Amino acid sequence: MESYVVGVDIGGTGTKFGIVDKDGNVLFSSEMSTKKHLQVHTFIDELYEHLSEMIEKVGGFGRIKGIGIGAPNGNIYTGTIEYAPNLPWKGVIPFAKMVQDKFKIPVKLTNDANAAAVGEMMYGAAKGMKDFIMITLGTGVGSGIVASGQLIYGHDGFAGELGHTVIIPDGRLHHGTGKKGSLESYASATGVAQSAREILSESDRPSTLRTIEIDSITSKDVFEAAVKGDEVAKEVFEFTGKILGMSLANFVMFSSPEAIILFGGLTKAGDMILKPTREHMEANLIEIFQNKVKILISHLKESDAAILGASALMWE
Amino acid sequence: MESYVVGVDIGGTGTKFGIVDKDGNVLFSSEMSTKKHLQVHTFIDELYEHLSEMIEKVGGFGRIKGIGIGAPNGNIYTGTIEYAPNLPWKGVIPFAKMVQDKFKIPVKLTNDANAAAVGEMMYGAAKGMKDFIMITLGTGVGSGIVASGQLIYGHDGFAGELGHTVIIPDGRLHHGTGKKGSLESYASATGVAQSAREILSESDRPSTLRTIEIDSITSKDVFEAAVKGDEVAKEVFEFTGKILGMSLANFVMFSSPEAIILFGGLTKAGDMILKPTREHMEANLIEIFQNKVKILISHLKESDAAILGASALMWE
Repeated sequence: MESYVVGVDIGGTGTKFGIVDKDGNVLFSSEMSTKKHLQVHTFIDELYEHLSEMIEKVGGFGRIKGIGIGAPNGNIYTGTIEYAPNLPWKGVIPFAKMVQDKFKIPVKLTNDANAAAVGEMMYGAAKGMKDFIMITLGTGVGSGIVASGQLIYGHDGFAGELGHTVIIPDGRLHHGTGKKGSLESYASATGVAQSAREILSESDRPSTLRTIEIDSITSKDVFEAAVKGDEVAKEVFEFTGKILGMSLANFVMFSSPEAIILFGGLTKAGDMILKPTREHMEANLIEIFQNKVKILISHLKESDAAILGASALMWE
Repeated sequence: MESYVVGVDIGGTGTKFGIVDKDGNVLFSSEMSTKKHLQVHTFIDELYEHLSEMIEKVGGFGRIKGIGIGAPNGNIYTGTIEYAPNLPWKGVIPFAKMVQDKFKIPVKLTNDANAAAVGEMMYGAAKGMKDFIMITLGTGVGSGIVASGQLIYGHDGFAGELGHTVIIPDGRLHHGTGKKGSLESYASATGVAQSAREILSESDRPSTLRTIEIDSITSKDVFEAAVKGDEVAKEVFEFTGKILGMSLANFVMFSSPEAIILFGGLTKAGDMILKPTREHMEANLIEIFQNKVKILISHLKESDAAILGASALMWE
């Protein structure tokens, strides 16, 4: 009997994987390095070693319905990972097929934020919802859009790149894409650090952040300073929330979701970022959308969420 | 045998209606005033008079599968028209139910741009497509979004208000909504006229538009001047295309459509607006979306398109 699925979440630095039952319990999980594998083959070989050990513990391959994989620039239609800037493997990688050939069980692959959205729908804050948008606020900004209970993939499988939508025309340069004024260039960990650096270098305002070498300021530094009441740091979150809120208003007027689920590092700033986000979202919505859309923080355990999300692809 | 459907397109000024067969032929069609009916009951009574006459010509009510209606702020879930700023009937009108009670046949109602999208999918430029976005560029900017062959309605039926998405933060005031910097405040007939007025009043540049009283300049005047080579008028379309193109890039990164179908008055400006639109869309797209998305002009006969779109709801 196929009682379990495997979830694999591939990140630029590390890869998380685990075995999940139908109720969303992560029975076993572990982690390995992504970036040390310059060859995708050796990566898959190591993944196989770890996973077959785990799979034995739950009764062997016969108990496994399949492997769900979330990866940057993962494409559900083709099973490929395409030109992922943060992965060591370049070009178009037929990743799902390679894993399927190795493991001899079904494989589904999609992008990491889409996988996270499916995880939220099955086990998290979006349980029971048919229309919602998942936004991951990490090093970058990812998104997964669910409408009428289905992920929106678009004609080519690449829908839901909301982090790259333009919110400030001719605004801040995004070094990864070469584009200007995208949501990701402001509302990511990278963006928060840059906003702090800009305020510090363009003014003489006092700030505890001035004790840190300016180029090595991180979003965590800004968060810690803001918690202690630093005015510059607090303004950075206020500004980030403004940009995020304006963008969320646009997303709401696109697909009219019941809720927007936020996930990732920046959500730890809590009301410091959520309050301006809500305020500027509402301020930019036309009347029929006002006071309807919930902004929720994912309550899945961060270490499990990625694995759960990827594994959920196989229950779909 | 139910061989025909009725399509009704309600606009602020007039209402178009007609009888359509399965191949999308509009057999009979006509028009009546919307705005002279301050009471929705008298409007429906007049509509019934016109339509029952037409319906008799095709063999009576037994031949009619139902009535599809497109209306501003029409809601497919509830069958209501809600707070439509340009209609004479205020508040929430249970329009579908009222029409159904009068005609005793099934009725489906949605917003006018959604109806137009269904029409394009069944009979027009989007035939055979499963993922596309319809943008109507008229007095205002409407939109209908189709993903995986289904209209996106959102949790409350109001999805697809792309004309109200913010493209220039703190930009031009939209008098109808009180919001600033929306696509509609620039890329509509109203927006084009205002752009012309702004350039004329903020500079001394020569323009044939200066022969017209500035407050009565229309988008048609700007179009005619541009065709004759007027530099100011040409710049207005260039600017409008830039704003529209940036917005389209955002929409593409949301739902990754195969094509964007443009419909309505502004499309008559042809390459004067399409060229900058394409250029600025591509310039704002990240690599995986570049040179993939078609921008197409609806080729449905304008007088038929609205009726066809509304009627198509009943074949869905």
